[in-house]
Amino acid sequence: MPDTADLPPLSALTLAALRERFGERLSTATAVCLQHGRDESPFDPQPPQAVLFCADEADVLAAVALAQHHGLPLIPFGAGSSLEGHLLAVQGGLSLDLNGMNRILRIDPEDLTATVQPGVSREQLNEALRHAGLFFPIDPGANATIGGMCATRASGTNAVRYGTMRENVLGLRVVVADAAQGSRAVRTGTRARKSSAGYDLTRLFVGSEGTLGVITEITLKLHPLPEAVSAAVAHFPSVDAAVRTAIALIQMGLPIARCELLDPHAIRAVKRHDGLNLREAPMLLMEFHGSPAGVREQAETVQALAAEHGGSDFDWASTPEARRRLWTARHRAYHAALQSRPGCRAITTDSCVPVSRLAACIEAAIADVEASGLPYFIVGHVGDGNFHLGYLIDPASAAERDTAEALNARLVARALAAEGSCTGEHGIGLHKQGFLLDEIGPESVALMRAIKQALDPRGLFNPGKIFAAAG
Amino acid sequence: MPDTADLPPLSALTLAALRERFGERLSTATAVCLQHGRDESPFDPQPPQAVLFCADEADVLAAVALAQHHGLPLIPFGAGSSLEGHLLAVQGGLSLDLNGMNRILRIDPEDLTATVQPGVSREQLNEALRHAGLFFPIDPGANATIGGMCATRASGTNAVRYGTMRENVLGLRVVVADAAQGSRAVRTGTRARKSSAGYDLTRLFVGSEGTLGVITEITLKLHPLPEAVSAAVAHFPSVDAAVRTAIALIQMGLPIARCELLDPHAIRAVKRHDGLNLREAPMLLMEFHGSPAGVREQAETVQALAAEHGGSDFDWASTPEARRRLWTARHRAYHAALQSRPGCRAITTDSCVPVSRLAACIEAAIADVEASGLPYFIVGHVGDGNFHLGYLIDPASAAERDTAEALNARLVARALAAEGSCTGEHGIGLHKQGFLLDEIGPESVALMRAIKQALDPRGLFNPGKIFAAAG
Repeated sequence: MPDTADLPPLSALTLAALRERFGERLSTATAVCLQHGRDESPFDPQPPQAVLFCADEADVLAAVALAQHHGLPLIPFGAGSSLEGHLLAVQGGLSLDLNGMNRILRIDPEDLTATVQPGVSREQLNEALRHAGLFFPIDPGANATIGGMCATRASGTNAVRYGTMRENVLGLRVVVADAAQGSRAVRTGTRARKSSAGYDLTRLFVGSEGTLGVITEITLKLHPLPEAVSAAVAHFPSVDAAVRTAIALIQMGLPIARCELLDPHAIRAVKRHDGLNLREAPMLLMEFHGSPAGVREQAETVQALAAEHGGSDFDWASTPEARRRLWTARHRAYHAALQSRPGCRAITTDSCVPVSRLAACIEAAIADVEASGLPYFIVGHVGDGNFHLGYLIDPASAAERDTAEALNARLVARALAAEGSCTGEHGIGLHKQGFLLDEIGPESVALMRAIKQALDPRGLFNPGKIFAAAG
Repeated sequence: MPDTADLPPLSALTLAALRERFGERLSTATAVCLQHGRDESPFDPQPPQAVLFCADEADVLAAVALAQHHGLPLIPFGAGSSLEGHLLAVQGGLSLDLNGMNRILRIDPEDLTATVQPGVSREQLNEALRHAGLFFPIDPGANATIGGMCATRASGTNAVRYGTMRENVLGLRVVVADAAQGSRAVRTGTRARKSSAGYDLTRLFVGSEGTLGVITEITLKLHPLPEAVSAAVAHFPSVDAAVRTAIALIQMGLPIARCELLDPHAIRAVKRHDGLNLREAPMLLMEFHGSPAGVREQAETVQALAAEHGGSDFDWASTPEARRRLWTARHRAYHAALQSRPGCRAITTDSCVPVSRLAACIEAAIADVEASGLPYFIVGHVGDGNFHLGYLIDPASAAERDTAEALNARLVARALAAEGSCTGEHGIGLHKQGFLLDEIGPESVALMRAIKQALDPRGLFNPGKIFAAAG
């Protein structure tokens, strides 16, 4: 992989043009560039040559036009919480920091929609929605920006009931390349809940990882805060028993809102980190949304089903505080696990398989990693068939990295053999380009390349991501 | 609009090549061509020059390759139930009749997925699923093919709870053009419930109206048959009161499975046609899915809400037979209305608006059509903000057609001003190309054209649809 340390600085001409247009909002400071050349992936940073702190869509339009003129790669940047190297400036260029575009433009409670700028964070949005009795359910754990969540087609714990970004974005404004003017802004949808008006441009940009344009505005579908919420944990004699319980829930159509697996390693990490009193046995962490009677009924059904699979130690958290503690712990599992081995990095898998194949895939992955001796943890959105195995490696050890990558490759191969995907929610980025080819074949990747070529003929939007290594 | 009667027959060379490859499966009989040159739209038929009854994907691959070689337009054909002229051979060419590709390839009950060929009909699939306790919820009324439903991004009565084809297709196989070989088949997804693996090709083909390739295989998300189902009708003092009740249900997050409006004209038509005993007053026809207790609770909530808006005459249909009669009547509303004015055709609107704007849009449309004197009816998927106003015109009267088109244009203009879409589920086809431009702007249509150009450089897949008249 190239190191941008080897790249020349921007040409004086390019830099002058950028400075003239953006003034102080442009930075070439080493620390700023370094901070914008990394994400939560285990890759070493690759800094852009400059960072633009965008104030509004006009900045983005100007940046894209200048980039077209000067042949400058552009990398949209939000919270920096992506996990597959999406933000690394592998060909240098300009990082577009969108955190300053963080205005909630409108909330329409009667229509259950909101329109926001890309730098609005998930928590910021939900804070603003609460007084209206609404929420935006997509919750990848990190306090990501809505723009970033669009770009990676994020999902997370609530997806089993509410869907992913794919299902919850109604429309976008996107700045794209334009042959004549350098750039232009396009709209991809309306505030209507459904539409058959031409190609689904919204879904094309959702999940495109910044490779087709820069999202400048997002209209989202909202949901009423449920009348009643309750959460529960249940422990199981094995990961297999926990997963089979989750599968049974899905197969019977129970509208569970969240259904998360934590293995004993993940539990140990969060216990140490958050001081929670949990047994170190495979656990399902669940949440139910509905009317008080509906939530009660769901909980009873789940308890009976769990018992059939050897589940025990049901523990209910129905106060908001108790629930928040549990979910905070779940969301911190990744960072807690990192801290369990000081100085380590995590190589995190993200495969998603048909639910009937999930238990076997997880069991095989555990057998593999146990045999390797690498420390690890497992968390999973098991209701969707999606799980994350984190290999905790010493970044200084090439051997550990190689072992983790080899295990990851075997895990993905099993997921693909089970008719699943190499990535449920993290995206392809730099890390999974070979897996993408294995998953859908070179013909389909060629189609993606043709679309990229049509919309970004000079290849300047986040180059090197999704399929650069292919073809 | 050109009439294919004016087009020359296929060249002897092209015809010989088609005959050599396909033998008896190719037809140039006038009656067959005529039957394949129309749909349920009010347009006069425009027959293709030949029809190929495809037996398998190999036929589609060969047809696409021959089409590339001979410059032959291709129009995929399913049940013929589309409503916007999608199937009219405006540039002549070959109709690909896919009804022979009607095998259900697999059902995986444990994963809640099925894989089918494009000619499988909605009812055929649900018949096959019933024994497994599953169903496929998308129900546009017509017994459309699954391939056709993909192509138009169909939805219908269940969409308010289960989503549209957009949300319920997991992956496709599609035959696309290939510069070297003439054609190739690509896969767009796996059987996993979610994925972030590259561009969302599945959603790109869903709703592309046959303009990018030919769908040869579809993997669908299934749903467990609900434990309990109940349906109810309620009558209201005005269309406005009925719509406001539906809006209130949606805003409170009640998981209603279907929520349909029928105006007095639609009720009169179905009564005459189906002999149902219904009051000729604005009506909501609703269905609830869930546990027996959950369904009961939903029904009580709805009854209270309806009463607040002046709703009365609640009538419950909890036996399958009673429910089937009601829904059959609803689904026949279109044909029943056509029969209410012998010899007429319907120009049907399909706008979809944010729910808070729905009542005002419908009221204004009613005032308009009442002033015109044209007979009409209204049905609506009001939970989604989507409604259909059918203008019943005498096809021989240019004046009536012009009046209906003018009313339609005013209705769409109001829907767009309300931040809605000109089409919730029928698609653009021939009829709404100007509306599409008004809706998302020439910049977005240019993006669609760029994608079309990239995937179908010779412009042979269903030419003249979606954006031919634009640009």
